[in-house]
Amino acid sequence: MNDSLKFIYNQQKELSTYSGISALLGWDQMTYMPKLGIDKRSQQNSLISRIMHEKIISNEFWNHIKKLVKPNNFDKLQIKDQIVVKRLYKDVQKSRKIPSKFVEELSKTTTISYNAWEESRNKNNYKIFSPHLEKIIDFKKKYCDIINIPGHIYNSLLDDYEEGMTVKVLKEEFNHLEIKLTQILNKIKKCEKYKNQNNLNIEINSKKQQKICDFIISKMGLPRDKSRIDISTHPFTTSIGNNDVRITTNIKNTKPFFSLFSTVHESGHALYELGILKGEYLDTVISDAPSLGMHESQSRFWENMIGKSISFWKFFYPYLMKKEFKINNKINFDLLYDYINQVKPSLIRIEADELTYCLHVILRFNLELDLISDKLTVSELPQLWNEKIYKLLGVKPNNDKDGVLQDMHWSGGNFGYFPTYAIGSIYAAQIFDKLQKEIPTVNNEIELGDFSNIINWLKINIYNKGRIITADEVIKNICGENLNSEVYTKYLKKKYFKIYDCN
Amino acid sequence: MNDSLKFIYNQQKELSTYSGISALLGWDQMTYMPKLGIDKRSQQNSLISRIMHEKIISNEFWNHIKKLVKPNNFDKLQIKDQIVVKRLYKDVQKSRKIPSKFVEELSKTTTISYNAWEESRNKNNYKIFSPHLEKIIDFKKKYCDIINIPGHIYNSLLDDYEEGMTVKVLKEEFNHLEIKLTQILNKIKKCEKYKNQNNLNIEINSKKQQKICDFIISKMGLPRDKSRIDISTHPFTTSIGNNDVRITTNIKNTKPFFSLFSTVHESGHALYELGILKGEYLDTVISDAPSLGMHESQSRFWENMIGKSISFWKFFYPYLMKKEFKINNKINFDLLYDYINQVKPSLIRIEADELTYCLHVILRFNLELDLISDKLTVSELPQLWNEKIYKLLGVKPNNDKDGVLQDMHWSGGNFGYFPTYAIGSIYAAQIFDKLQKEIPTVNNEIELGDFSNIINWLKINIYNKGRIITADEVIKNICGENLNSEVYTKYLKKKYFKIYDCN
Repeated sequence: MNDSLKFIYNQQKELSTYSGISALLGWDQMTYMPKLGIDKRSQQNSLISRIMHEKIISNEFWNHIKKLVKPNNFDKLQIKDQIVVKRLYKDVQKSRKIPSKFVEELSKTTTISYNAWEESRNKNNYKIFSPHLEKIIDFKKKYCDIINIPGHIYNSLLDDYEEGMTVKVLKEEFNHLEIKLTQILNKIKKCEKYKNQNNLNIEINSKKQQKICDFIISKMGLPRDKSRIDISTHPFTTSIGNNDVRITTNIKNTKPFFSLFSTVHESGHALYELGILKGEYLDTVISDAPSLGMHESQSRFWENMIGKSISFWKFFYPYLMKKEFKINNKINFDLLYDYINQVKPSLIRIEADELTYCLHVILRFNLELDLISDKLTVSELPQLWNEKIYKLLGVKPNNDKDGVLQDMHWSGGNFGYFPTYAIGSIYAAQIFDKLQKEIPTVNNEIELGDFSNIINWLKINIYNKGRIITADEVIKNICGENLNSEVYTKYLKKKYFKIYDCN
Repeated sequence: MNDSLKFIYNQQKELSTYSGISALLGWDQMTYMPKLGIDKRSQQNSLISRIMHEKIISNEFWNHIKKLVKPNNFDKLQIKDQIVVKRLYKDVQKSRKIPSKFVEELSKTTTISYNAWEESRNKNNYKIFSPHLEKIIDFKKKYCDIINIPGHIYNSLLDDYEEGMTVKVLKEEFNHLEIKLTQILNKIKKCEKYKNQNNLNIEINSKKQQKICDFIISKMGLPRDKSRIDISTHPFTTSIGNNDVRITTNIKNTKPFFSLFSTVHESGHALYELGILKGEYLDTVISDAPSLGMHESQSRFWENMIGKSISFWKFFYPYLMKKEFKINNKINFDLLYDYINQVKPSLIRIEADELTYCLHVILRFNLELDLISDKLTVSELPQLWNEKIYKLLGVKPNNDKDGVLQDMHWSGGNFGYFPTYAIGSIYAAQIFDKLQKEIPTVNNEIELGDFSNIINWLKINIYNKGRIITADEVIKNICGENLNSEVYTKYLKKKYFKIYDCN
């Protein structure tokens, strides 16, 4: 039994080492790799992925795990080992269902699909991508057959990102969310302030934007000796080691606060990664987030509930108005706060405001459901996309580039992933709601740029749970209830009605 | 037989993929890794090294190679396959001599020794490092016993870096080199110009230095889509993929031309790496340099024979004097050219001038010989170092930090490595001598900043040979003779006697 324990811990440690290597390959590809390095990088990526998959599904590993879960043995384990073994059993059992050949073929297909998607998007020609999308959907349907989680076929996809989540639960939450968001949006649209809102034409050059990002990172307490920030096309966070978590941002001169909010967002992910349960669980499957939705809750919490709050701007406005930034002095606090919270239905998800963001996600969720359950064909998709986005947001894409081709997710086979963005937003609101009740002085602290109590609270209530319990259980422990979009829409209503002077 | 061929090519390709991954881990560690990422990085490095070693010495690999070298089979192979198989047989046979346990223990020892060396150097306390150095020398002696190349025990160490090189050959060349360099140096020391030479107090800020480095990289034709330059403490070159070769430099405000010359030096390595034989040999053991000395010849060639030549400065001086650099205009061409070629015996190898550089190497070579053959103990080493450097260069270290502790090589177990620096310098002079004869207009071309013919000549005569033949054979093919320090000392004598107005 001791041999088995030793083996499974060694195996997890090696997997964690590979995972860091894989993260570095990805980070470098998105930041510094010379353009023509891509061919060799693909080989490097796929070699490491293959080896990791082989390690996960190896018979030796599985036999040790099976030995340890046998009741007679399991009962003799320490609590910590029981937690690890239980989690491993579930993870490895699932991975072993998927034939290596399937993994390999899917990987090849998505590499080709990604290139096709890029070309399709650049040339604004959906037909280049559509045959690949069809193939990927076939793969995903086969995948669902293999995994075979009860209920809706799409549950098997959801489970990869949000363990235990079902279409039944999401449909109910998302329907409610859609209705409420639409009500709030319609009301705001009728307000005078909405009709008269303008762009502020603020310009902050790239050097100053970087300075602002550095400032906010240090304020949020990301340690420099364990993290760094770089530039990439799409901002992301990655863990190369338990003491090496990196974020990226993008500097856009026409959108001077994009870098700030993306940095706050990614720093939320990074604080979670660095703070997540380690100690005796270091390099085990437990030292991880319970779900992508929970991970996203951490970034959305910081980006929206903190970063776009009035308290935060009371702290941040004076810093920004320092003469080193030379921002137009006519922009007073109210103007700026309203500006960064402007509601503006638009075509592109990643540029959406806080209020309308989830409507973009709901659109994709419903389309994915229909595609996976054969209620919608790939050729019908673009038109339905355009109709639905118009119905939801009142905007019409002029082309597929700004419509169905805007996100890369489907080309990578990531069906079931989009919902986690909305789940994260809802969780974030629930967490913020509870936090405000437990730390009544929190808004004063934010006004002072002091986030230490917030981080400490997150550490106790979320980071320290690692993957010992599910996301669902984490939220229930904190808030006394599961995913509840009502808390989120209440928060949005209160915030945005105030901003737009609606009653 | 086809199965065996397929296997050995796949194996080499996988090894090459791992090698790129390993290079990326190293590059990142030296450039961007957050400080506390080091523990996990060590695990990542050693995992990849272990797997590579296991792959190289695997019985399956060896059996396929052995099958292919059997005369009946070998004769039926295509020439290209014969070259690969022959090379592999030699490489793998050598690697298989070394037990995995030995590799692992040496690796652990050097990791600990490196840390001890760093501490020892920082605290200027040799005694912290000396017990570790003793262990490493024991390891190296055991290694020589295992490899057991005929002749001097140290031959087994030399062979790892410079295949076929022997103590006998090197002793003769280095003795000659030492005598000649000393003669030239002594003569120069008596010249008026030497006695009156001064520091020029040129200041070029870090941004301008970077601009200069970028300029020189593009002039040397390093393609941006296949390479990049970054900053690290010690400049280096690394290949992450056949189309992804990276160099680093270091910006020192007190030594404004350090970044220029290190960039030219590393670009020499990088041009070689990018240009080296590929095609049907891509991802095989043949697509590599035949020795470290040959690799170093490429960097020294560019740094010294080109970069510090009068022709180069005729091209470079006007660029440097552009008003954007705002360099003191009183510095005329002659002053600057003399300055960058100042002979100045000093304590630190990596800061040495072109003339005295090899004396630093010879010192280390002789000490290594004595240490490996038990003629010198680790405790006697610092004093002997100080005596010898004084004898060679007339300078006395005030402490071990500027003496025996200055280089990290020994802490990493790299005995037999130092000589390649001098071998590279000698080769470079031999190559330059032949190049000037074959392209009589070469100095005019350098004056115009046009290096295309030089690179083309190097491609034909060196890059394209890959590892098909040994370094020795490459030089003999080009110059009609083997390693010959006489060519080098003649070059130095001519250049420096002119600069110092000696007769």
